[in-house]
Amino acid sequence: MAASSSLSLGELAVRYGCELHGDPAIRIERVASLGTASPGSIGFIVNARWRESLKATQASAVVLDRAMLADCRVAALVHRNPHAVFARIAQELHPLAPARPGRHPSAVIAAGADIDPTAEIQPLACVGAGVRIGPRCVIGPGSVVGARVDLGADVRVHARVTICDGVRIGPRCILHPGAVIGGDGFGHAQDAGQWVRVPQVGSVVLGADVEVGCNTAIDRGALGDTVIEDGVKIDNLVQVGHNCRIGAHTAIAGKVGLAGSTIVGKRCQFAGDSGAAGHLTICDDVIVTARAVVTSSIDKPGMYSSLFPAEPAQDWRRFVAEFKRIARLRARVKELERAAGRGHVEESGS
Amino acid sequence: MAASSSLSLGELAVRYGCELHGDPAIRIERVASLGTASPGSIGFIVNARWRESLKATQASAVVLDRAMLADCRVAALVHRNPHAVFARIAQELHPLAPARPGRHPSAVIAAGADIDPTAEIQPLACVGAGVRIGPRCVIGPGSVVGARVDLGADVRVHARVTICDGVRIGPRCILHPGAVIGGDGFGHAQDAGQWVRVPQVGSVVLGADVEVGCNTAIDRGALGDTVIEDGVKIDNLVQVGHNCRIGAHTAIAGKVGLAGSTIVGKRCQFAGDSGAAGHLTICDDVIVTARAVVTSSIDKPGMYSSLFPAEPAQDWRRFVAEFKRIARLRARVKELERAAGRGHVEESGS
Amino acid sequence: MAASSSLSLGELAVRYGCELHGDPAIRIERVASLGTASPGSIGFIVNARWRESLKATQASAVVLDRAMLADCRVAALVHRNPHAVFARIAQELHPLAPARPGRHPSAVIAAGADIDPTAEIQPLACVGAGVRIGPRCVIGPGSVVGARVDLGADVRVHARVTICDGVRIGPRCILHPGAVIGGDGFGHAQDAGQWVRVPQVGSVVLGADVEVGCNTAIDRGALGDTVIEDGVKIDNLVQVGHNCRIGAHTAIAGKVGLAGSTIVGKRCQFAGDSGAAGHLTICDDVIVTARAVVTSSIDKPGMYSSLFPAEPAQDWRRFVAEFKRIARLRARVKELERAAGRGHVEESGS
Repeated sequence: MAASSSLSLGELAVRYGCELHGDPAIRIERVASLGTASPGSIGFIVNARWRESLKATQASAVVLDRAMLADCRVAALVHRNPHAVFARIAQELHPLAPARPGRHPSAVIAAGADIDPTAEIQPLACVGAGVRIGPRCVIGPGSVVGARVDLGADVRVHARVTICDGVRIGPRCILHPGAVIGGDGFGHAQDAGQWVRVPQVGSVVLGADVEVGCNTAIDRGALGDTVIEDGVKIDNLVQVGHNCRIGAHTAIAGKVGLAGSTIVGKRCQFAGDSGAAGHLTICDDVIVTARAVVTSSIDKPGMYSSLFPAEPAQDWRRFVAEFKRIARLRARVKELERAAGRGHVEESGS
Repeated sequence: MAASSSLSLGELAVRYGCELHGDPAIRIERVASLGTASPGSIGFIVNARWRESLKATQASAVVLDRAMLADCRVAALVHRNPHAVFARIAQELHPLAPARPGRHPSAVIAAGADIDPTAEIQPLACVGAGVRIGPRCVIGPGSVVGARVDLGADVRVHARVTICDGVRIGPRCILHPGAVIGGDGFGHAQDAGQWVRVPQVGSVVLGADVEVGCNTAIDRGALGDTVIEDGVKIDNLVQVGHNCRIGAHTAIAGKVGLAGSTIVGKRCQFAGDSGAAGHLTICDDVIVTARAVVTSSIDKPGMYSSLFPAEPAQDWRRFVAEFKRIARLRARVKELERAAGRGHVEESGS
Repeated sequence: MAASSSLSLGELAVRYGCELHGDPAIRIERVASLGTASPGSIGFIVNARWRESLKATQASAVVLDRAMLADCRVAALVHRNPHAVFARIAQELHPLAPARPGRHPSAVIAAGADIDPTAEIQPLACVGAGVRIGPRCVIGPGSVVGARVDLGADVRVHARVTICDGVRIGPRCILHPGAVIGGDGFGHAQDAGQWVRVPQVGSVVLGADVEVGCNTAIDRGALGDTVIEDGVKIDNLVQVGHNCRIGAHTAIAGKVGLAGSTIVGKRCQFAGDSGAAGHLTICDDVIVTARAVVTSSIDKPGMYSSLFPAEPAQDWRRFVAEFKRIARLRARVKELERAAGRGHVEESGS
């Protein structure tokens, strides 16, 4: 992504409410990491472990909080949330390419599709009947927009995305390559050892500002809809089962799996490869750490875990062997207690 | 999916062998959940936890078993397997759109491909040389059907599916967007710290009525074929390694991974994100629960698990710390036993 | 993949430095597994468990090491690394189809793209502006090559691959269907309970001879590049986060997840569904076993694990219950020790 503009440090300080330390006339053209920055770039620091990089950086300026200021040898924009300010500056310096209104002749567009004249339909895209595409949307190459899909303004559909029939997508959503929105939920009834397909007659609704990662799949509802509320960010290779509802501003990292009918609150975070077992409710402000699996409803905000960190294989084998013998160890303790005349009253079932 | 037909309750009762409670003339147009149903719709109930929804439903009728009948205030179809009856009614009311015979002019079809005249080739699909496509198949937009692929009757290939060269697919299979059938298996021989690619000369064979979910990958065999038997249902983002064989009517939920040469029996169930380590055999009627990993062959039907449910993070950290100290605890117990003159004979290796 | 050539056993022995036992004039046309082989084929054996198949094989010849020779009833090529020799023979007998120079008329190619005349652009592919495509590359049907992408010689891009803007790919890389190289990293700054997108201005660089599996996603860097060094082999449905660096000749099996900024050494192996938590460094020659998760840096070569094998569900439930009560068990042991006048000095924190 090439930088497309340049701004003075003074403009940036005013626009983002930062305290400026340095020459307001310095021109900033691009963002960079502290370690590789060159003049004309701006970096940021949020973690003291990068302090040495801060001291040595060749960036023209750095966004940081007051605690870091003493170690900054170049111009600085001081703000209590340097990461967010940096993100906004980066968006300004490296904006998404604007939609180039029009339809590539290789795209296949059903008669009667209602496409705003400011939208861009890129090569080899396919747009179905009854579709409505809002202003300034971009439909990437090879993407398929099914029948009766509704896209709000400024939606970005990257290359090779599939949006299935009837899905509704709010303004400013970004869908990354390979994402599939609205595939059939996994619904099958068992009958005499065989499976009978249950048609999935619901749809998927994405709110505003939702982002969906590469090769992620969000299934349509069985009867009602699968709903992703405003501002939810979903990473790559995530599976969202039918009838899930994800609360606003929740973030879901790569490889997460949410089984059907999981209800997730607002501002939750699912770390990489974590998940939920389905048919349960998770309240607002829950953090599920990497690879943890939620198997019952959570009604208390906080952090939840179930990961064992990798250990040297021979240690691990021993740990697992010990784990499977705890019951025997407990029986031995009970026996010692009995012999010592200490009738320990165990909890029920122990 | 809009309802495409309407049936009387009497017709439904006869067709699916249900006991009818209510007016046989009631017209049913669509399926719905009990909670959101309106007149003209039919719902179902299989779990007593939804009893209140049953009592309050606005559906015109409900499919249920005898135990629920007393709480039903509307017409009822009584059957011992309400879910399967409901699935069949839903299929009838919400059928797949029939194939519209013909080839979209934007599709690229190799000379000599043998495509049944009743099949439909949608926009921007690509069909290779030597392909055979059976009656009433639908090839979705942007899908790629490789050379010498063979599709039985009534196969549904949704948008953006890849079927690699030489794959054979049985009648009535459904392939969801982004699925890849017949990619190369992961075969590499080690040689002096580098990897030598092993050509994967086998193929993939899908039986009848197989369903493959969004962005799922089923690899072709290294020498023989990867085989998915009749009626197997595979959800999204599943990985099936080369030379696996999945027995008939097995169901595989989202994010499951089966390493190469896993042999799975009939009527097994793999819950979400479970898996098998490869080069092993699992007998018929095995259920692997969510996230469990099978690491050695199973010859006894039943349910297998290895998941730890998520716990509050501070509890979890304590559990893991205790887990890693079991051996020390056991040594202390042994010492107590020795001091008490109780020479406990431990199992070998303990 | 049909065999495309035939070679004599004598030629093979010379070419791959094997000791030949048998008639050098025997013609070999294809590879096969020992159990299904017929005359004209060559098999291999590396594991004594297949000894009975070796004794009974109908193959014309077998590649094996000296220890297996006595059980071979047909011609043999003896080598200390039979798998690697077999892989090379298989590559020769079953080569990739050569590129057929030219551009299918349905492909959409931006003006000024620099495509070597020996490269092949297959149907419905899309090639962006400023792209450079090297000699003998093949761009598969439906694939999208973004702007300014650079492909070295002999790169194979299979069907429906996405290569995002600016990605650089070394010679002889193979990208399997559905792979996405260079999607945006998952970068969002938190601000008052909402997420601010951080533009991902880095790219992805693949070295020579890298292989990327079906529906795998490799994200572009946030500021610097994501780098995959020479000879790395990546299987299906793998997630590689932004700014990862994977050392040369590392192998990554299906469903692995590497969170952002994971640095992996050379010749490592990640088994199926294993992963790393990000912002950590793993040294050369580390093996991470199936489903293990590395959560802190590793500076010692060797094998690392954290998998619990599946157990019968009722046993497993008991194990987990015991696991959560270890602390209580330890308290009881401490009490016994106290009563016995054995003031055990526990490790800190226990």
